[in-house]
Amino acid sequence: MINGDVCKFITEGKCGTCKKVCPAGAIDFDMKDEIVERKVGAIIVAIGNDIFDASQYVEYGFGKYEDVVTTLQYERMMCASGPSHGHILRPSNDQEPKNVVFLSCVGSRDNSVGRPYCSSVCCMVMAKQAILTKEHVPDSTTYLFYIDVRATGKEYEEFIDRAREDYGARYIRGRVSRIFKKGDKLIVRGVNTLLGEQVDVEADLVVLSVGLTSSPGAAELAQKLNISYDSYGFLVEGHPKLKPVETNTAGIFLAGTCQSPKDIPASVAQGSAAAAKALSLLSKDKLESSPMVAFVNNSKCVGCLKCQKVCPYKAIEKVVLRDGREVANVISSVCQGCGTCTAACPTGAIDLNGFSDKQLINELEGLFV
Amino acid sequence: MINGDVCKFITEGKCGTCKKVCPAGAIDFDMKDEIVERKVGAIIVAIGNDIFDASQYVEYGFGKYEDVVTTLQYERMMCASGPSHGHILRPSNDQEPKNVVFLSCVGSRDNSVGRPYCSSVCCMVMAKQAILTKEHVPDSTTYLFYIDVRATGKEYEEFIDRAREDYGARYIRGRVSRIFKKGDKLIVRGVNTLLGEQVDVEADLVVLSVGLTSSPGAAELAQKLNISYDSYGFLVEGHPKLKPVETNTAGIFLAGTCQSPKDIPASVAQGSAAAAKALSLLSKDKLESSPMVAFVNNSKCVGCLKCQKVCPYKAIEKVVLRDGREVANVISSVCQGCGTCTAACPTGAIDLNGFSDKQLINELEGLFV
Repeated sequence: MINGDVCKFITEGKCGTCKKVCPAGAIDFDMKDEIVERKVGAIIVAIGNDIFDASQYVEYGFGKYEDVVTTLQYERMMCASGPSHGHILRPSNDQEPKNVVFLSCVGSRDNSVGRPYCSSVCCMVMAKQAILTKEHVPDSTTYLFYIDVRATGKEYEEFIDRAREDYGARYIRGRVSRIFKKGDKLIVRGVNTLLGEQVDVEADLVVLSVGLTSSPGAAELAQKLNISYDSYGFLVEGHPKLKPVETNTAGIFLAGTCQSPKDIPASVAQGSAAAAKALSLLSKDKLESSPMVAFVNNSKCVGCLKCQKVCPYKAIEKVVLRDGREVANVISSVCQGCGTCTAACPTGAIDLNGFSDKQLINELEGLFV
Repeated sequence: MINGDVCKFITEGKCGTCKKVCPAGAIDFDMKDEIVERKVGAIIVAIGNDIFDASQYVEYGFGKYEDVVTTLQYERMMCASGPSHGHILRPSNDQEPKNVVFLSCVGSRDNSVGRPYCSSVCCMVMAKQAILTKEHVPDSTTYLFYIDVRATGKEYEEFIDRAREDYGARYIRGRVSRIFKKGDKLIVRGVNTLLGEQVDVEADLVVLSVGLTSSPGAAELAQKLNISYDSYGFLVEGHPKLKPVETNTAGIFLAGTCQSPKDIPASVAQGSAAAAKALSLLSKDKLESSPMVAFVNNSKCVGCLKCQKVCPYKAIEKVVLRDGREVANVISSVCQGCGTCTAACPTGAIDLNGFSDKQLINELEGLFV
């Protein structure tokens, strides 16, 4: 879709270059936003992530000092198609920076900002950017503050070694307590925990390695899809080890950083895995479902529908019996056999096939014989 | 297959319990080893890994002191079906250990033993075992020597925090220089690099967190399959970011730790991804292949077959022309268009479709117009 708020042809009637150059004739300025409804057999959720808002760390001066940027902004700066055409320049005075200081774990591994988790990718992003800094500005020096360097992927350790040894990246183990301005420089004050001493680094540019957060809409989407999400807003897989791409709701799969922070190789592999799982579902003529589903005893059901309210899979509907009574009914193809309804039913009218109260009690009695 | 060297029924004619209890009647003691030949359209290589031989670190006394074990041995010790029925006992005297010391990076991140890479899983294995130690022996204390704690997966950081805070795991940043015996205790001598001081820990049991290495047969297999392997013997994927499960040879895919050290969720996701790639190959009636393959100019070819020797894909065969001359011929469905043969040909008889010498020179000339 063309963004009608920005496109010059739509707003001003000028330009239209894209239409002229597109050999496939794929540009249509008259298209309107529309909601397309489709019936689908599987959903792969791959909505990605957001990044941490660095201005929450007031002591780092992001938003206050022009020369404090995030890794994402720095990435754009180093990009040939970016705002500075691939030249690394201090935003404050358009000069090349000589001392570039990186701060890791900005919004990661820090309970004080509600992010106790590791964002997984930032250590490697920092190392890459330190290497590129040296390549762009050969007489520059990079300083990288870190807690633990986390280089767990294939040849990641070697990459960190290269940054240190071949590109002179100076790793300092410690946290930064404050960044402040002195003349036209920034002073980065931290602690070198290995030497046990305070360290001040004079910086021309400070790059904050911001952590990954969940997308703002992730929780809302999860509620709509009846899948779980954790306290950080990341979507929850079926099993942390054995079902990394499945969810607890049949037919819905996860891929990429909406599940947790992960790097590109892991996201790509997970994407293929999710596709495989979706395909194995769609390639079948008939679907198998577990027989361990809930069922309602109509004679006991009083139609309060408390079960419907607690069912996480929307598997319970209201039906009217021939005698006019309204009772609950389990849609067995939708039911995942979680048993929540059986616990919620005040009259004991719902049971789980194979796990009825009587069966459970008999099993227990059998154990103690 | 039943291991005939170990099975009591095969060696001594006794036992046979498995046959009696197997409800499916799947046990056949008369089966013999056989080589089964199959024609296959895709291969997924998932041969796993080996572990580092801890006795290479003479200073740790593995193999010399009974109470120095590897994480794998310790895992068995904690397992209910293991040799000590799930009881953690010092091998030297069958007593419960009170002080258990873990050493990380045994055969990881250490160029002196030819393993500069990070083994990726050991930090989390150590943390898990520290938690289990406390659960098995409530009055025990665990000490964990580490370089960097690498907890990059989903909720891994929280897991480490739990080990530290709820289970009292004492993390000490530093390397261990020596382990020696004092009475019936082991003294673990290391450096606490955060405090900058030597530290001696009295241990009842020392657990070496051994790194992952490639399988001994990995390189040989790679040669047989015409796929690449790195200097550590790990198999090489098609592209480190964008093709994590493919190899450079069509139809051969990788899954799990034969590619690089990785944890269970990553291995499981990669396994599904490899299955998806294999399926997408097998589900097609016709295969597409790149038209950029090599071709031989018969009039220039002198039949030296140097091209055949260098071809990594075995895509070159010898053919006899009608006039009796022997020349090279490219099997275009096998050729991957790498161009190695064109460089090796002494008479310039091989070119790559779309990349002939003339085309390349014309392109260059075009650039400088």
